[in-house]
This record gives sequence, C-alpha cells and structure tokens, in this order.
Amino acid sequence: MKFSRRMKNMKASEIREILKLTQRPEIISFAGGLPAPELFPVEQMAKVSQKVISTIGREALQYSTTEGYDPLRKHIVDRMSKMSIETTYENILVTSGSQQGLEFSGKIFLDPDDIVICESPSYLGAINAFKSYECQFREIQTDEHGMIMSHLEETIKENPNTKFIYVIPDFQNPSGRTWSLERRQKLIEIANKYDLVIVEDNPYGELRYEGEHLPAVKSLDTEGRVVFLGTFSKTFAPGLRIGWVCAEDELLNKYIMIKQGSDLQTSSMSQRELAVYLEDYSLDEHIEKLIGVYKTRRNLMIDTMKSTFPKEARYIVPEGGLFIWVELPEHIDTKELMVKAVEEKVAFVPGGSFFPNSDTKNTMRLNFSNMNEENIVEGITRLGKLLNNEM
Amino acid sequence: MKFSRRMKNMKASEIREILKLTQRPEIISFAGGLPAPELFPVEQMAKVSQKVISTIGREALQYSTTEGYDPLRKHIVDRMSKMSIETTYENILVTSGSQQGLEFSGKIFLDPDDIVICESPSYLGAINAFKSYECQFREIQTDEHGMIMSHLEETIKENPNTKFIYVIPDFQNPSGRTWSLERRQKLIEIANKYDLVIVEDNPYGELRYEGEHLPAVKSLDTEGRVVFLGTFSKTFAPGLRIGWVCAEDELLNKYIMIKQGSDLQTSSMSQRELAVYLEDYSLDEHIEKLIGVYKTRRNLMIDTMKSTFPKEARYIVPEGGLFIWVELPEHIDTKELMVKAVEEKVAFVPGGSFFPNSDTKNTMRLNFSNMNEENIVEGITRLGKLLNNEM
Repeated sequence: MKFSRRMKNMKASEIREILKLTQRPEIISFAGGLPAPELFPVEQMAKVSQKVISTIGREALQYSTTEGYDPLRKHIVDRMSKMSIETTYENILVTSGSQQGLEFSGKIFLDPDDIVICESPSYLGAINAFKSYECQFREIQTDEHGMIMSHLEETIKENPNTKFIYVIPDFQNPSGRTWSLERRQKLIEIANKYDLVIVEDNPYGELRYEGEHLPAVKSLDTEGRVVFLGTFSKTFAPGLRIGWVCAEDELLNKYIMIKQGSDLQTSSMSQRELAVYLEDYSLDEHIEKLIGVYKTRRNLMIDTMKSTFPKEARYIVPEGGLFIWVELPEHIDTKELMVKAVEEKVAFVPGGSFFPNSDTKNTMRLNFSNMNEENIVEGITRLGKLLNNEM
Repeated sequence: MKFSRRMKNMKASEIREILKLTQRPEIISFAGGLPAPELFPVEQMAKVSQKVISTIGREALQYSTTEGYDPLRKHIVDRMSKMSIETTYENILVTSGSQQGLEFSGKIFLDPDDIVICESPSYLGAINAFKSYECQFREIQTDEHGMIMSHLEETIKENPNTKFIYVIPDFQNPSGRTWSLERRQKLIEIANKYDLVIVEDNPYGELRYEGEHLPAVKSLDTEGRVVFLGTFSKTFAPGLRIGWVCAEDELLNKYIMIKQGSDLQTSSMSQRELAVYLEDYSLDEHIEKLIGVYKTRRNLMIDTMKSTFPKEARYIVPEGGLFIWVELPEHIDTKELMVKAVEEKVAFVPGGSFFPNSDTKNTMRLNFSNMNEENIVEGITRLGKLLNNEM
C-alpha cells in the first residue's frame, strides 16, 4: 500500500493525543482550548432547535448551498462589523470551524516546498493543516507589539517562494500577545509590496478582558489580499462546528470550490440553529458573560502562578483569549514534565509543537477558560510544586 | 497572488452550478441527488433534538474526539453488518458526509500524476475530490455486471503508478448499474495481486427496490485493502452531514490524522442527534418507507420515459439508488439541450462531467427521488418533447 508523500510529514496532533489522556475526570486539565461548558446557552438552544425543526425542519435536513445559509452569512457580516470589517454576505463562506479555513488556505496556495511565514510560536492546528501540503515554515520573532517587521521583510526577501503570512493578531495562540495598530498597518504595507496573501486567524478577538479593541488586519486591507478566518467556537459553542472565511470575490470563489469537493457544505441544521439563535438572542450579551467569567479565571490563574510558580518562570498577562504562555529555564523539558504532571493529575500542553522548525523544550501553554476557580487554584498549585522541584 | 498548481485543474462542479439554477421553485428538477424532503422524519427529530439538548446538551455543544461519538460509531457497526461487513467501532471514523471520505482518500494516497482507476462513467463529486490532488484517471468500461475485468487488469499493468481503484458497486452513480458477486470477488483478487487499495463508495446500497442484496466488496476483503465509505445522507437526511469511513486499524489512523487537520471533528450535536434517533427509532422501518416511495417514482419515471422518449434513447431500469442514466444518439449535446430544458422549466444533469477524460456529450442523468409523482410525469413529458424535436 503506497501513500502520498505528504503522509510522511504527518503525525497525530500532540494536543489531541494529550486531550485523550486528560479526558479522565480526575485530571485538572489546562491542556485543551475548550470553552466553559457550564456557560453554553443550553436553555436557549432548546428553544432554538425546537423552532428550527418545527418551522424549517425539512429545509434543515436537506442539502443546501456550499456557500452557506444566507441569513447566517448576514449575521456574520454584522459580527464582522464589530471587528471594524465592512463586508457583504456574498464575501462570506460558512466553514466547519475555522480549522477548515486553515486547511483550505493550505490547499489553495501551497505546492511542495512553498514557504508559509508565521509567528514564532504559532498555532499547532494551523501548522499541521499547512504541513499536510508539504510546505516549509519560516518563523518570525515577535515582541509585545507583534511580529518584528525587519525580520519579516528580511525573511520574505530570502524566500521568494513565500505564499502567505499566517498571523493571529489578537491574543495569539499560544503566546497570548496582541499586535499593535502600527504593526498591523506595516504588515499590510509589506504584503502589498511583495504581493503576498495574509491569512488572519481571529478566534478570540471578541474575548477581550481589558484594553482597547484594535481593528482587524482585514479592515486595513487595501488590495483584497487578506483572508479572514472567524469562528463561533469560542464565543458560542464549538460542537456545532461553525466558522467562516471572509475574502474578496475571486479569492472566495476558490474557497467555495474547495469546500464543494471537501464536504459539499456545512451542516444545514447547525447553520439554521445558529442563525435563529443570533436572530432571537443577543450574542453580545452572551459574550459579556463569558468575558466576566474568563477574566476572573485568568486573574485567579495569574495570581496563583505568582504565589506558587518559581521566580524563573516567565509569562505575560494576556489581555484576552484563552491562554497563558510560560517560558521556563532552558534545562526544563516540558514534555518530560508533562509525564510527571499527569501523575499528579494536572495537565498542560508542552510548547514544542507550536514551533514548526525549532525544538524548543522549555515552554508550556496553560488554558484558563475550561476549569472552574477551585480547580485552577488546585491545579496551578500542583504545577507550581512540580516546577519548584525542577529548579 | 500565486495559487497552488492544483487550482488550475479546479472548476466549480457542474451539478452545484446547475442546482443553483434549478432552485427556482417553478423548475421541475431531476438534476440533484436529493432525497424527498417530505419523507424526512421531522416529528421524530423534534423529539430527538429535545432529548439531546436536555440530557447531554453541554456535551453536544462542546468539542469531542476526532474519531466520532462512540454510540454513533457502534450504531454504524450495526448498519455495516446489514451490508455483510463485520467490523468494530474502532474501525469507524465519522466524517462530514461521504464526500469528506472521498476527499481524504485523495489526500492520503495521491501525489501529482498518480493514477486513479474508476468506472466509466463515475461519480462527479469523487472525480473533483481526487482531481484536486493532481492525479490522472483511467476509466474502465463496464457492462451490466460491473467493470470489465480484463480491461481493468490491462490498465493496471500499463499504469504502475496506480494508487487505488474507486468503485460504486451498488446502483452506481450515474449509471445505475450493480456489480455481480463474481466481479466483486475478482476485483479483490486483482487488488491483492497488484497491491492496490480499493475505495468502495456505497451511498445507496440500502435503497434496493428489487432483486437480491449482494455482499459489499469490503466484506470480501482478505488483506485489509478496502476502504468503505458510507453515509446517512440518502437513508436518513443529508442536512446533518454524517458519513463514515471504515478501514483497517493502521489505514484508518491515517484518515483520523487527516480529519484532525481538516476540521477537527464532525458536529458533536449532529452526531448525538443521529445516535439518539438510531437508538429510539427504527431506521430500517424508515428505509422501508423510502423504498416504497422511491420504487413507485422510479417505475413512474420509467413508464413515462417509455411513452414519451424517442425510441433512440437508451436506459436501463436500476434495481436501486436514485438515478436513471440515459444514452442518446451521438449528435445530441446534452449541455446544449439543458439550456432548452431550463427554458421549458425542467432540469437534468448533462452526463459529460461524469467522464474524467472523455468528452462524452450525449448522456444525461435523471434523479427520481426528489420530485413527486405529478412532477415526474409532467417533467419527463416535457423532456420527451424536447428530445423528440432533436431526433
């Protein structure tokens, strides 16, 4: 049995394998990027699903268009305007989560050995999706304002087969960093200058706990070269698998064509349920509730880290999103630490997988949205003890 | 903006484009492969969705494993046994429709210029999914028993870079033909001899209107080289987007890995709704109902064709599935005919797109599941008039 070349590069995502381990209920897990299930609007969804099935049930069970359900696409346009992006529903393709938008971006742009430029570190799921198209990665150093632009431009010059720049400008996964407005503008300038596409991934932008909202890179796009990927997985619920791609007409047509061959369309039922929810209830109010709870959890995690982690551990307080990124002294290997942590019934994601090229061993990602306050204190305290033993 | 090489081969599926045209309510459409919406179990689904949201609502809205929801995987094992396939739930991956299984097969096996062997004609959606991995096709002639085996073996010998053989042995789309047991056995022998994978696509196998059920090719598999693709789109409802891949352990792991990078998982909600339906109701009874209605529609369509189509039109009576395949005299170009047909408010799919290599102009595919009896008579009569004008 002969497989395609790409299969040689593919291995199961470390996060998913670890998630399996950590699904045992006795484990306090900071590993996944899961929203808090106790906040899901279950009662509202009960009403919504009843309404969908009783009013448009047959339509919801039938095939529908690849592009997506128009009323949902129109609601997405409204959400985009909250991120300062003016667009129309014809420029929206509904996808099965934003992961699918990443996969399609790889398929549309990448031939073997083409270059993807990304932040260092970058989102593991994106790295895996792009890698399946046999590309190479160039990682750009970042500071607290985003990618370092001189490093970006130099890298582009050195790599003429660069196809796109992949960025998560808001509360980056895993680093938690947010790009300044200046860097966003400069990124557009550079993309224009070198005729490159920008893939802007924004799953957490609406989960800001403090500070000023910054305009999406897409909103600064002057030449239609930014592909924006959005999702309802973090602001509503991931189980419905609803995300979207926003791009200019001709470019979006490529995504629609690829979607057609990939799975024809996203669930007619899920799309209608979400559209009715957005019509009948306020997602903004729901997000306000999420922000209240997640901010408390973030603060509690940071406070507990301050009092239990060794002074050598470095981390920043993210202004939003779901993650805290921790850098440890170089002699610590967080993959080895993870084995000990699971013995102590606490879990995190070792940071190595977030670097496509390097083998950085001394970092970890902690999620603060999924565990309740008690578990955060208990789990971080356990981790702190383990870390102190390693110093 | 530079796209990947594959995008040069890609064009929007003719069916989807035509479907858009034919969505106007005044058109009698035999174009799509849509089930009859009036038969969807809407009342039962209302109960099912209420039960899911009120008992496991938070779980249904959360992320879950890539492989799929275990109770659903176990129900799929039961359905497989009805097709004579003995398997376990660990060998099932839940996908977003069987289209996704086709896409993954392309991704897992195909490098540029690799060969896919398929029936001539073959399913348009599969051709497009494979083509996106820059493969070449070899079409094998078929007779009323399936692929002609001498032609298959000869083609394999001529094409050492053949990766897999793609077949739809039951009520093939578009030809309506069904493979004999002998050909199924011979196919396995040949695949074993030349170390090839078989991708068996079986969306309609349970929709048999007469004759004896034949064992799936997968059930004859002696060396774990058959990948079986199933779906609930035709037997239950396509709007949920639930299909599956069944394959041996190591091979299934490749599909799981690709699923992970593609969209993480199929909708948690849809999987649970379907699992509860399968637990609380009888899909067999539902399929019996479908068979009753679809058989009547098939018979009515065939009878109307007999009385209104010119004698030069050739077609067989399919023992199951959703389609009747029509061969017309060579001077007829069904793409041109389609334009006239839409003017007369009736639609079909021109057959050309079902041939990956040749430019066969004189065929058409008619769907009989989606239109009611009155529309079948009226639409076929209109088509018959058009065809008679062309003779």
